[in-house]
Amino acid sequence: MKAAVLKSFGTPLAIEDVPAPVLGTGEVIVDIVSTRVISYTNEVLSGERQYALDLPVVPGAGGVGRVRAIGPDATKLAVGDWVLCGPTVRSRDDAIAPDIHLQGVSARGEGGMRLQKYFHDGSFAEQIRVPTENVTRLGQISATEADQWCALGNMLVPYGGFLAAKLQPGETVLVSGATGNFGSAAVAVALAMGAACVVAPGRNETMLAELVRRYGERVRPVKLTGNEADDCARMKRAAPGPIDCVFDIMPPSVATTVVRAAIMTVRPYGRVVLMGGVNMQGGAGLELPYNWIMRECITIHGVWMYPPDAAVRLIALVRAGLLRLDHYETKAFDLDHANEAVAYAAANAGPFSMTMIRP
Amino acid sequence: MKAAVLKSFGTPLAIEDVPAPVLGTGEVIVDIVSTRVISYTNEVLSGERQYALDLPVVPGAGGVGRVRAIGPDATKLAVGDWVLCGPTVRSRDDAIAPDIHLQGVSARGEGGMRLQKYFHDGSFAEQIRVPTENVTRLGQISATEADQWCALGNMLVPYGGFLAAKLQPGETVLVSGATGNFGSAAVAVALAMGAACVVAPGRNETMLAELVRRYGERVRPVKLTGNEADDCARMKRAAPGPIDCVFDIMPPSVATTVVRAAIMTVRPYGRVVLMGGVNMQGGAGLELPYNWIMRECITIHGVWMYPPDAAVRLIALVRAGLLRLDHYETKAFDLDHANEAVAYAAANAGPFSMTMIRP
Amino acid sequence: MKAAVLKSFGTPLAIEDVPAPVLGTGEVIVDIVSTRVISYTNEVLSGERQYALDLPVVPGAGGVGRVRAIGPDATKLAVGDWVLCGPTVRSRDDAIAPDIHLQGVSARGEGGMRLQKYFHDGSFAEQIRVPTENVTRLGQISATEADQWCALGNMLVPYGGFLAAKLQPGETVLVSGATGNFGSAAVAVALAMGAACVVAPGRNETMLAELVRRYGERVRPVKLTGNEADDCARMKRAAPGPIDCVFDIMPPSVATTVVRAAIMTVRPYGRVVLMGGVNMQGGAGLELPYNWIMRECITIHGVWMYPPDAAVRLIALVRAGLLRLDHYETKAFDLDHANEAVAYAAANAGPFSMTMIRP
Amino acid sequence: MKAAVLKSFGTPLAIEDVPAPVLGTGEVIVDIVSTRVISYTNEVLSGERQYALDLPVVPGAGGVGRVRAIGPDATKLAVGDWVLCGPTVRSRDDAIAPDIHLQGVSARGEGGMRLQKYFHDGSFAEQIRVPTENVTRLGQISATEADQWCALGNMLVPYGGFLAAKLQPGETVLVSGATGNFGSAAVAVALAMGAACVVAPGRNETMLAELVRRYGERVRPVKLTGNEADDCARMKRAAPGPIDCVFDIMPPSVATTVVRAAIMTVRPYGRVVLMGGVNMQGGAGLELPYNWIMRECITIHGVWMYPPDAAVRLIALVRAGLLRLDHYETKAFDLDHANEAVAYAAANAGPFSMTMIRP
Repeated sequence: MKAAVLKSFGTPLAIEDVPAPVLGTGEVIVDIVSTRVISYTNEVLSGERQYALDLPVVPGAGGVGRVRAIGPDATKLAVGDWVLCGPTVRSRDDAIAPDIHLQGVSARGEGGMRLQKYFHDGSFAEQIRVPTENVTRLGQISATEADQWCALGNMLVPYGGFLAAKLQPGETVLVSGATGNFGSAAVAVALAMGAACVVAPGRNETMLAELVRRYGERVRPVKLTGNEADDCARMKRAAPGPIDCVFDIMPPSVATTVVRAAIMTVRPYGRVVLMGGVNMQGGAGLELPYNWIMRECITIHGVWMYPPDAAVRLIALVRAGLLRLDHYETKAFDLDHANEAVAYAAANAGPFSMTMIRP
Repeated sequence: MKAAVLKSFGTPLAIEDVPAPVLGTGEVIVDIVSTRVISYTNEVLSGERQYALDLPVVPGAGGVGRVRAIGPDATKLAVGDWVLCGPTVRSRDDAIAPDIHLQGVSARGEGGMRLQKYFHDGSFAEQIRVPTENVTRLGQISATEADQWCALGNMLVPYGGFLAAKLQPGETVLVSGATGNFGSAAVAVALAMGAACVVAPGRNETMLAELVRRYGERVRPVKLTGNEADDCARMKRAAPGPIDCVFDIMPPSVATTVVRAAIMTVRPYGRVVLMGGVNMQGGAGLELPYNWIMRECITIHGVWMYPPDAAVRLIALVRAGLLRLDHYETKAFDLDHANEAVAYAAANAGPFSMTMIRP
Repeated sequence: MKAAVLKSFGTPLAIEDVPAPVLGTGEVIVDIVSTRVISYTNEVLSGERQYALDLPVVPGAGGVGRVRAIGPDATKLAVGDWVLCGPTVRSRDDAIAPDIHLQGVSARGEGGMRLQKYFHDGSFAEQIRVPTENVTRLGQISATEADQWCALGNMLVPYGGFLAAKLQPGETVLVSGATGNFGSAAVAVALAMGAACVVAPGRNETMLAELVRRYGERVRPVKLTGNEADDCARMKRAAPGPIDCVFDIMPPSVATTVVRAAIMTVRPYGRVVLMGGVNMQGGAGLELPYNWIMRECITIHGVWMYPPDAAVRLIALVRAGLLRLDHYETKAFDLDHANEAVAYAAANAGPFSMTMIRP
Repeated sequence: MKAAVLKSFGTPLAIEDVPAPVLGTGEVIVDIVSTRVISYTNEVLSGERQYALDLPVVPGAGGVGRVRAIGPDATKLAVGDWVLCGPTVRSRDDAIAPDIHLQGVSARGEGGMRLQKYFHDGSFAEQIRVPTENVTRLGQISATEADQWCALGNMLVPYGGFLAAKLQPGETVLVSGATGNFGSAAVAVALAMGAACVVAPGRNETMLAELVRRYGERVRPVKLTGNEADDCARMKRAAPGPIDCVFDIMPPSVATTVVRAAIMTVRPYGRVVLMGGVNMQGGAGLELPYNWIMRECITIHGVWMYPPDAAVRLIALVRAGLLRLDHYETKAFDLDHANEAVAYAAANAGPFSMTMIRP
């Protein structure tokens, strides 16, 4: 089959013929119809992000496609089903603290690298082999809709965080990083989950206005100044009442003081979710007053990705019209132009833009 | 490899050489050292229980052994590890409502039968192939201890129920069916989980006394009379305070009125767990006053088996000395005497007896 | 102050002057602006429902008004605040299983009657004294909006049930009793909580069509036939997928077989909520197959009313525009016409009608 | 009645006659039989801790006594009942984020101070008036046992933390601050809740040995060196497996780097509880790597005190013999010697010592 292969960090993807995956008894093989190119894929491929990848590798974080072959551990899937493939591979021999490998992207620790040996290649290819539990049926869609359904890959990430924080309909959320790609998805997901109000801080006023235009008056924009104390106060004021849940998904470049300004807007007994890339390459850690955490009874959830049962309900929210996928402007490339797709994604990292590869 | 094979219901197990299992990519192969023969295995093999089994089949519900081969979805298991194999096979393509097959025992519905096609054979054999998530490490044990560790197979069942009911240390539990095999295990597990008191009703006074002798004063025996209203009142009186959780694990032969007497001892806002075989072959259903359930805010949990993460913590409770395995008198047979083992198990169905096959 | 007083069951309410409530240190006194007359109030006042009420009594289940006086156990309430008063009085000396008294309506057991002694009178009066925790701030409203906000009294009941069942956005719900007063509120609340689909069974096709007209395509009406097996199958077919949660709020007159048809539509691992009045005056209990509950891992929640923290979030859902109060056609009476109000409420028991008393 | 009164910070308690409390409708009056003097009471009375107290005040954090008078919001309490009084007063008009006042000790924010106005005086007196929900029945005890039951005041604090972290039987816990007064109580409580193993780090080897001597082999002592990286590694090694839950209850004097060494021993997906006094008087905050919290999916719970339902179950654990109170050596003073009691408590701050005032 045809695939885009990274042979060494910093070189272009080689578009070439590679052996098609062979089905094992714990997996599903999917014909990829569309896969989203994450905006920072260029940083992964250049080696700048220092992600743990065993080369050569086919990159690509999940996608949308049709089931080609099914193992004996599936009872409801059928060949031809339209499915979403998630990239989060978890080891099956530790139900409590599984190792994690993000197929086609990165892995956590030695255990994650062991998983990567077998679930090695990502979705920039005609086919992908994924663990059975990573596949979720979409129901009937048309091939042209496949691009838009890839947006679930964006939305499932914040959904995982809000599930960890047990977000309730009627609550008030603050999304730190709201004008980013995942952050704007967090705004949409929080609203779809019934948040009464989403405070959206950012520096880019045009983008803040755009969030309000698209999602309506439940979004409360806040222009940040860069002064920690001022920003904290402004964000609090923007909310009509106490902020129940703060969600942070800032990129690696952001200082922890910016994150702290957002965190400390949360009300007593509130919950904080950390899903960003901050400190990924070191730098000063996140410093918080111990006494504040204790006296105010704050809970902080570090969350990486989302649980296996998340996709079913998010798909249902889309089907019900509660979560819209048509906010994304998509630009599709074929596999032969995978390098162009990566460059395009980097140049169009905004919140409502999605770059696709259609193998 | 050698195995005990059921060729048709009502015939003896044939002890013969069968092909050894071949490892797939989602499984583990275990050399079985000891497997417990459930007391009613004779009723399964005779066809009396009408369990869904695709013949010929190697029966046997999990067991204890050593890892022989490991798939690529495991990162912590090593060849040679002592492990517990659980029989509960769940389909991997539905995280919310998976199909279930009890390997070597039975299956639920069409989906369960599809799982049975691949995870077909049970543990009355030298080797077994199980899904990776069904294997839990025991740590170092000696071969002679393998029999006792099989008792976990008994204990995990009520543990699954108490987890569903979120049993808290310091609570009062009533075990309906306490003098049975699984019921007495429920008493032990509830105590190990920190139950302040376990009310143990039954008709067999000798056995009730035995429960108190073994587990101490936190067990409160109640002699049942067969009169529903009287029995309900007696059980309530036996508890030092309100009963927080009622756990029922009565066998198929018991009438639902007996179960109801136990259920209705639970306090307002209390939880009821149903794990028995009642109504398995039809008969009058469980009739409860709707208004009582509503006004008293009762929660009823139907529970089949236990979740994937249960074994790790139960093993830790044993290692910590909080749950003892030495209450069981074990009688072991080799594979050649599997039929004798089944007969022996049926004749020794009491609470502190365990019949083993050691392949 | 003026109040409507029930002196003996079966006699008209006497509109007369009674002593105004005196503030204690654990309460709030509220000037009632509007209170909803529950449709079956006539059955309570006639004695037909045999509700536990110590006569003479001022009936009336909570309402909307302004804070007149505040005890020392409140820190955020201010005199003049618009508030919702809930009727569910819970004893404060048992955090685990509190006694319950529905102020102005009924009480559960001896403990409930003890609470009724002090929190004796309901809301058909110019003032009411309620426990501090029963008051929730509404924010600014106008006096003319007070009628509509009373609809929260209807909506909080099913909300309590869905909270118990941990309803998730994206799930599918079946509301048994959807064409009734509380049942239609359950449909609205489930949708506001993000249910992807609400199956609404009933016999009244006009009303079913009305539910769809008001709440849109996410509501799936089902015409019931009265045949249990048929109805169960029809309800399942009406859902686009498995039914995650069945909510029942049938009135006392309905047979338990009707309830069972609804309950048994729930998917494996599904949740059932029972909040209706079924069996209130005896009759055959709810009979369910034990084996089905167990094998399918069903959870059944009996729920009476709603927890103390429910109102805050439901009010936020209204403020956010996610839950609309304008579906109700309200008809208001003054206190002098309280008996007319009770009669009118009985004659207009439909789902989108609300009868008010404005003292 | 007689009471010990603090008139200004830094002066001795005045033992004098003050008006007895008058019962309101939301409270209970208790005749105090014994009250524990927290070891740092001297720092509160001197003003060193800068606790928010409206002077003059009767200090004292809850205690054990007999019910003298009961409000109408209680249905199970009776005059003469032996009870535990908890100090945590919560405002009743905010179910989601109540204000908190620790009666006789301190208050949080303006709202807490408003509560303090009414629930003003603590337990160094013959009588105390507390909110009804702050009283829990102990069952029958003798007056001489009252001292020991006061130990619950110590134990409820860590119990509140373990409840927040949903500690499960069979888990491994690390108690940071294990050789302190609350820390050693945390060790006892974790064991009573079924922890398989409690890692107990500290600098005082004698005290570590004492913990093992009293609580047995499930306690794993670790001698700390003061080197953060070394200490973290030592603590991990002391556990037989991954550490599921880290509980910190370090005093204000301890540096956040010491806390961090403990926190970072927790396994992926583990939970951290912060209940100490660290940063109470400022100093460098707790700095943690954001990326570690996120990638390892860590949850951090700040917890102040314990929920209203905690005491019932902890009392049941004592009654069941699962939590022993006889580890404490008690030294009792009468009210006339309250100042001596405070000095004695400060001089005997060790883990198994308790200083009492018996009014």
